[in-house]
Amino acid sequence: MKPIAVTMGCPVGVGPEIILRLFENLEDKTVFPPVVLGDLAVLSRTAEQLRSQVEPVPWHLGNEIRPGTVPVMALSRLNAKALQWGKPTRETSVAMAEYIRAAVRHTQSGDFAAMVTCPISKKALNNAGVHFPGHTEMLAHLTETVHYRMMLAGPRLRVVLVTIHEPLAKISKLLTIAEIQDCIKMTAKSLRKDFSISSPRIAVAALNPHAGEQGMFGQEEIEIIQPALDQYEQGDCEAEISGPWPPDTIFYKAANGEFDAVICMYHDQGLIPFKLLHFQDGVNVTLGLPIVRTSVDHGTAYDIAGQGKANSTSLEAAWQMAAQIAKNRTGVHRHGKRYAGCL
Amino acid sequence: MKPIAVTMGCPVGVGPEIILRLFENLEDKTVFPPVVLGDLAVLSRTAEQLRSQVEPVPWHLGNEIRPGTVPVMALSRLNAKALQWGKPTRETSVAMAEYIRAAVRHTQSGDFAAMVTCPISKKALNNAGVHFPGHTEMLAHLTETVHYRMMLAGPRLRVVLVTIHEPLAKISKLLTIAEIQDCIKMTAKSLRKDFSISSPRIAVAALNPHAGEQGMFGQEEIEIIQPALDQYEQGDCEAEISGPWPPDTIFYKAANGEFDAVICMYHDQGLIPFKLLHFQDGVNVTLGLPIVRTSVDHGTAYDIAGQGKANSTSLEAAWQMAAQIAKNRTGVHRHGKRYAGCL
Repeated sequence: MKPIAVTMGCPVGVGPEIILRLFENLEDKTVFPPVVLGDLAVLSRTAEQLRSQVEPVPWHLGNEIRPGTVPVMALSRLNAKALQWGKPTRETSVAMAEYIRAAVRHTQSGDFAAMVTCPISKKALNNAGVHFPGHTEMLAHLTETVHYRMMLAGPRLRVVLVTIHEPLAKISKLLTIAEIQDCIKMTAKSLRKDFSISSPRIAVAALNPHAGEQGMFGQEEIEIIQPALDQYEQGDCEAEISGPWPPDTIFYKAANGEFDAVICMYHDQGLIPFKLLHFQDGVNVTLGLPIVRTSVDHGTAYDIAGQGKANSTSLEAAWQMAAQIAKNRTGVHRHGKRYAGCL
Repeated sequence: MKPIAVTMGCPVGVGPEIILRLFENLEDKTVFPPVVLGDLAVLSRTAEQLRSQVEPVPWHLGNEIRPGTVPVMALSRLNAKALQWGKPTRETSVAMAEYIRAAVRHTQSGDFAAMVTCPISKKALNNAGVHFPGHTEMLAHLTETVHYRMMLAGPRLRVVLVTIHEPLAKISKLLTIAEIQDCIKMTAKSLRKDFSISSPRIAVAALNPHAGEQGMFGQEEIEIIQPALDQYEQGDCEAEISGPWPPDTIFYKAANGEFDAVICMYHDQGLIPFKLLHFQDGVNVTLGLPIVRTSVDHGTAYDIAGQGKANSTSLEAAWQMAAQIAKNRTGVHRHGKRYAGCL
């Protein structure tokens, strides 16, 4: 099977150490084996410092992957000894951006089955002259993707956000029937294609408490969300869509298996319940890209970088989910069926 | 010990059956035994229909409470046979309001140690000519309380709301330094007095995603919440107060024991994580009243009333919490200390 590209993220963040942990916990004969797009010297020095049992080795496309090694496609030659944990430099930031570019290029060309990203610092990215609000926007640009959505996925809950990094006071004005419908459609497609759910059940959360209680606590349910549901056209990508649900109970229902995903109107509506259930093992999946991309759902954690304290559960989950999605997209999955309709 | 008043709530809702369940699960020699303020005929008919093992009996102040019975202070004489589950009438609604009035009166006079309320229908209350948005506002009026707050409390999480039933778009305009400080103070008092926590740790949630990320996603943290914290005066009711915390991680921290309560800026910010963790066993506690009052955190559930399907976990938790608070307020608690400072 094809490997999966794992970008090293910020060289002085927790990326290098969670990558070593990922390989330490890896079974020998895994399908979609991970390979690192990063810096060999940085990974070797980290392995030494943390007395890791796995050995970073140079790796090129087509090379065999040896058990007990960390195959590294070396894309930078940083002076590892001169770097300080938690202190990004222009060189580390330029390198960090290059890992992402290379991962996109090689995943798009088919060298990799998917890409998984370790955390970057937005500020460092900007200091390197790469001006995007974040990882996802950069990936959208590199793959020329206009419509994309952030899904957060864990074993018990999947949430997809209609609006993301916006002030709470502005949410109401940003919600439109078209945006909500776009989000529903992209979620329906992903649940079928990426998660192999043949009849996805999608819950759409309301914006206001008690779903507005017939307009007493807000009009957005009546004016925007309900019409978005009423006028939604399934097309060839059928799903069971319901809402607007009172926000304070819908996540309990979803986490208990009643729904496959919840469409959330704003960042914290989705992130509060998601992080409560999946603080360690949550995965960020970008919907709408032409390639499979998952990510850890945490940051660079500069304050603890290099100390061996970072938890690699999210990276392991992100890699496993990327592998599962890549597998599902090839059309071979647990039910042995293919859902061609909405692909 | 003094009994605790349990109001029957709407006579055609789930109140009567969860009360029977409460008594079925009761240990014989309990301190703060519950007594029901409600309708004897309705409870007897419900017991018959559900083949309950406990027997509703008339009860008056000062009477002994016999094991296996449901002591009922009869405050209405409804024609139980003529009533239909889920269909409130003017008579049931007038009776429902009277249970609350009597409970307040007798708890204020010291006949009861606390009061616990079963669910009412706001609409029915209004139809009976009693015009309050809900239970809590009616109790505040009856006890002449100006400042009161809703706390939701469970074994893992306590949340207190700065704003309650408001449209999301209006929250930003409703937040003031004074309101946030009032909420912090009332929470600090309750944690010490009601929950016997000598050094309460209170987390104040931010309003915006990532706590506004230095003003990029909203100004309320800079202009309102941080000043509320900076200018907060502890007075004689000390607590460890911190924030504004990013909303998407603070509930995880609180649920894992880092904080005793989270001050929430809006209804769903607190209710989403609370109901996710405490869907069954959550308790609504009204802070600021001169009496101890807890409540189930669910509604009348007219659709399943009288069928024996209703879960009594929340009522049992509400009764137990009322008993614990009553006990703590008397000054005798697990550490054997009294916290007189802020009482």
